[in-house]
Amino acid sequence: MFISFEGIDGSGKTTQARHLAGVLSARGHEVVLTREPGGSDGAEAIRRLLVEGATDRWSPETELLLFNAARRDHLERVIEPARARGAFIVSDRFADSTRVYQGATRGDLRQLVDRLHTLVIGREPDRTFVIDMDPDVALTRGLARQSGEDRFEEFGLPFQNKLRQGFLALARDFPDRIRVIDGMADLATVAARVEAAL
Amino acid sequence: MFISFEGIDGSGKTTQARHLAGVLSARGHEVVLTREPGGSDGAEAIRRLLVEGATDRWSPETELLLFNAARRDHLERVIEPARARGAFIVSDRFADSTRVYQGATRGDLRQLVDRLHTLVIGREPDRTFVIDMDPDVALTRGLARQSGEDRFEEFGLPFQNKLRQGFLALARDFPDRIRVIDGMADLATVAARVEAAL
Repeated sequence: MFISFEGIDGSGKTTQARHLAGVLSARGHEVVLTREPGGSDGAEAIRRLLVEGATDRWSPETELLLFNAARRDHLERVIEPARARGAFIVSDRFADSTRVYQGATRGDLRQLVDRLHTLVIGREPDRTFVIDMDPDVALTRGLARQSGEDRFEEFGLPFQNKLRQGFLALARDFPDRIRVIDGMADLATVAARVEAAL
Repeated sequence: MFISFEGIDGSGKTTQARHLAGVLSARGHEVVLTREPGGSDGAEAIRRLLVEGATDRWSPETELLLFNAARRDHLERVIEPARARGAFIVSDRFADSTRVYQGATRGDLRQLVDRLHTLVIGREPDRTFVIDMDPDVALTRGLARQSGEDRFEEFGLPFQNKLRQGFLALARDFPDRIRVIDGMADLATVAARVEAAL
């Protein structure tokens, strides 16, 4: 089973992905905890090009191609082999992030995003959790980390608000796959909501 | 006018591109001498991912996406602005390399190569010179450079022979745009052939 977590920067999705992976692992399952952009050696090298540097470092179109290159490598080298072994895959972000970031927020590229996805990826998670969060709160968390990986946070609050609306719209487009989880609570409460929805 | 040079590794196309740029510049034209993968800051960073490391570092599909990301950045930031100014652009490689390397040699991906090109690039040079060369001679030249950029040379001689056939086939597919230049001669002789064909 392939599970992805999505949401705006600082929404707590990384923590929730890690927590769920621990729960599944404790129950005796093989779990591959991974993330995007990245998750394989090649994709992690591409990640550095995407999350570091100035906001105008790449156009939305170039960014989209880099995300697809990273995703293709991640899919070939980590996700598909794990699926073939019957492992659980828990990924911090997947293609929904591209639909929302490059498809609806950075640029109005949703049609191009969908075409590229069909051409070179063609895989969806079995279940996706959108951790929904007030961007005012989330942005403070995200930037507070000072990870050096804050290129997308640097686009600012209106950008994050648009992302949030994008994720909620996507959940309406894919009602069978995507569950929206209220992320405005402590870790354990949000984790219990995720497990209940799973 | 946008001119590209193509050919197998070590064919002398880089030298010829530089020479032609010098000739045009000496005649008083603004000339932008550039190259692929690379040619812009972002694309040069992507270049390092493509030309360094082990041959199996990327699958043909991932490689194709990275080349398109680099080309899109190069196009947006260097080629289109230069065209708008009316400058000559002389590029050491462009999309034909992708058609031959990823489309016909690394993988049988020509259909995917063409779709991606239409979706995100959509630009051809006005004139392309294929510098044709015996791969036995060219490979010796290429590896002798020991640039650390020899990932594609490392695929070996049968690979370079397949590339050569790919470039010659492409010249037959685009007879109006592509001119094949016999590269088995000294620099000045080959340069005179290029200028005559231009």
